[in-house]
Amino acid sequence: MRLAIDAMGGDHAPKEIVLGAMDAISQIENLHITLIGDENKIKEYLTNEKNIDIIHTDVVITSDDEPVRAVRRKKNASLVLMAQEVKDKKADACISAGNTGALMSAGLFVVGRIPGIDRPALSPTLPTIDGNGFLLLDVGANVDAKPNHLVQYAVMGSIYVEKVRSIKNPTVGLLNVGTEDGKGNDLTRKAFLQMKEAPINFIGNVEARDILSGAADVVVTDGFSGNVALKTIEGTAMTMFSMLKETFMASMKTKLAAGMIKNDLKGLKRKLDYSEYGGAGLFGLSAPVIKAHGSSNRRAIFSAIKQACHMVEHNVTDTIKTTVESIEFEKE
Amino acid sequence: MRLAIDAMGGDHAPKEIVLGAMDAISQIENLHITLIGDENKIKEYLTNEKNIDIIHTDVVITSDDEPVRAVRRKKNASLVLMAQEVKDKKADACISAGNTGALMSAGLFVVGRIPGIDRPALSPTLPTIDGNGFLLLDVGANVDAKPNHLVQYAVMGSIYVEKVRSIKNPTVGLLNVGTEDGKGNDLTRKAFLQMKEAPINFIGNVEARDILSGAADVVVTDGFSGNVALKTIEGTAMTMFSMLKETFMASMKTKLAAGMIKNDLKGLKRKLDYSEYGGAGLFGLSAPVIKAHGSSNRRAIFSAIKQACHMVEHNVTDTIKTTVESIEFEKE
Repeated sequence: MRLAIDAMGGDHAPKEIVLGAMDAISQIENLHITLIGDENKIKEYLTNEKNIDIIHTDVVITSDDEPVRAVRRKKNASLVLMAQEVKDKKADACISAGNTGALMSAGLFVVGRIPGIDRPALSPTLPTIDGNGFLLLDVGANVDAKPNHLVQYAVMGSIYVEKVRSIKNPTVGLLNVGTEDGKGNDLTRKAFLQMKEAPINFIGNVEARDILSGAADVVVTDGFSGNVALKTIEGTAMTMFSMLKETFMASMKTKLAAGMIKNDLKGLKRKLDYSEYGGAGLFGLSAPVIKAHGSSNRRAIFSAIKQACHMVEHNVTDTIKTTVESIEFEKE
Repeated sequence: MRLAIDAMGGDHAPKEIVLGAMDAISQIENLHITLIGDENKIKEYLTNEKNIDIIHTDVVITSDDEPVRAVRRKKNASLVLMAQEVKDKKADACISAGNTGALMSAGLFVVGRIPGIDRPALSPTLPTIDGNGFLLLDVGANVDAKPNHLVQYAVMGSIYVEKVRSIKNPTVGLLNVGTEDGKGNDLTRKAFLQMKEAPINFIGNVEARDILSGAADVVVTDGFSGNVALKTIEGTAMTMFSMLKETFMASMKTKLAAGMIKNDLKGLKRKLDYSEYGGAGLFGLSAPVIKAHGSSNRRAIFSAIKQACHMVEHNVTDTIKTTVESIEFEKE
């Protein structure tokens, strides 16, 4: 198993990226990692050179770079060279915590799509109350989705959750404004009918109110609504934590109480931390491409590496390929 | 000032509806309320008959009724008779905590649109960290919005917030997948350009992550995404409260701590309770129509009544009318 990792992407690169890679190398058998980035900076954190290669480059795509242009012009950027490793079959999968748009562009233009998949989908696993989590896709790779794209997301998400998260016959829900059949906008009403015919365990419409309670193992939506849902979850959680903090700091009594449950509250925060489930997969590409969160620490990078390994071991890409070959997707 | 209120709509009707009306009659001058519903049941909670009329009907639209059909067939339902009062100019505004879809249908078919407004928008005010709140529209009246609809929402929302919530020159943001100009799907990219030309204080794109921190006073979006955002906020808050409760019940120590901050946490819950800001206005109709939350208690109904009074006193409908007359909306 060979992974290519963009050592320069993310808020804590290269330190946390390299440390996460070190953890993975020591714990996962037969793993070989190619780190791409500034060799001197990478070596600062390298505790072990076994099964590690470095491809040196000074060029980095920053979060301010315009994605498509950056991928086209900065051909020697760590993120682009990483995708090239996959393209050249020198790596089975790749991971970056850098510019999301640039990773999507590099995925599309360098790694390439699976034949039959019209658009890749960005697919994070989010926490649920019961701790099982659910896959949400798409959260922004394709903001003008067509019904058949949503069906493809459903198929890809279903395969991923079954293979990698070991959930048998996972339930697939369509994010909608109501749970009844026939609800929704033009896009979801058309997608609903097509999803009913797809080889998935489709349970119908689900509402945003219920997705964190585990309404479905896979929640399918267009990239615009999915992005809104994802960022609303983040914003609401952030707001509540900040209000909670304010509440705890209000008086001597509340401060005392806060001190007593500090550790338990950390557990709560951890439960909501979706980096535990790895990064967001960019599904529909001809090899696993993982977007780790920009704020990833070594633990999150380690999770993303495990996730990439699982995707390769369980042939997620090939299964998607053969499954979509067997489906006749309606155009529109 | 005359209001028509559906006494039979909502989870706690007619009790909480009537009690809220009683509170309003005793506190708001020159207010006259017509309660529509089962006279006997209403009278059980009537503590005062001054300035109160009752229109009796046995017919009720339930939450399970299909909205459009119910409004067409149940012509004597409390919700429909309520809208008819407004249509007949016997009431200046109306309020229901009942079936949202039915209220939207009755608003559209009985009360009628303001000329120049293509689609009404359902517009709740949601809490922000600083306590000021923001108006989100549309949250589901129109799930297949066109760019010019979004511009109309922006104008209506802006007028409402300025007149009723007394925020001068309120900021208007377009909900989008990124804050940069040019971001988004086909709908938001087109709407962005038109909103820049509208007579509003347009501040550009806002992300769902930032709306609860007060990114804009008015957040404009299509009914599908707005519904997703609203329900995601509700679902995330519910999930966090339930996780918090679990955390507090984990041990003797945490239970003790919970007891110490119980009252402070209630304050937090109240801060997130958007019934404080009244109900969701159905903007774009030829008179104020307010959707109170289905779970409304007397306090929420009282807030909705105050809100309706403010909308009438400040001529929100007329201002919207004259403003849209002065704008040439692009079709598409």
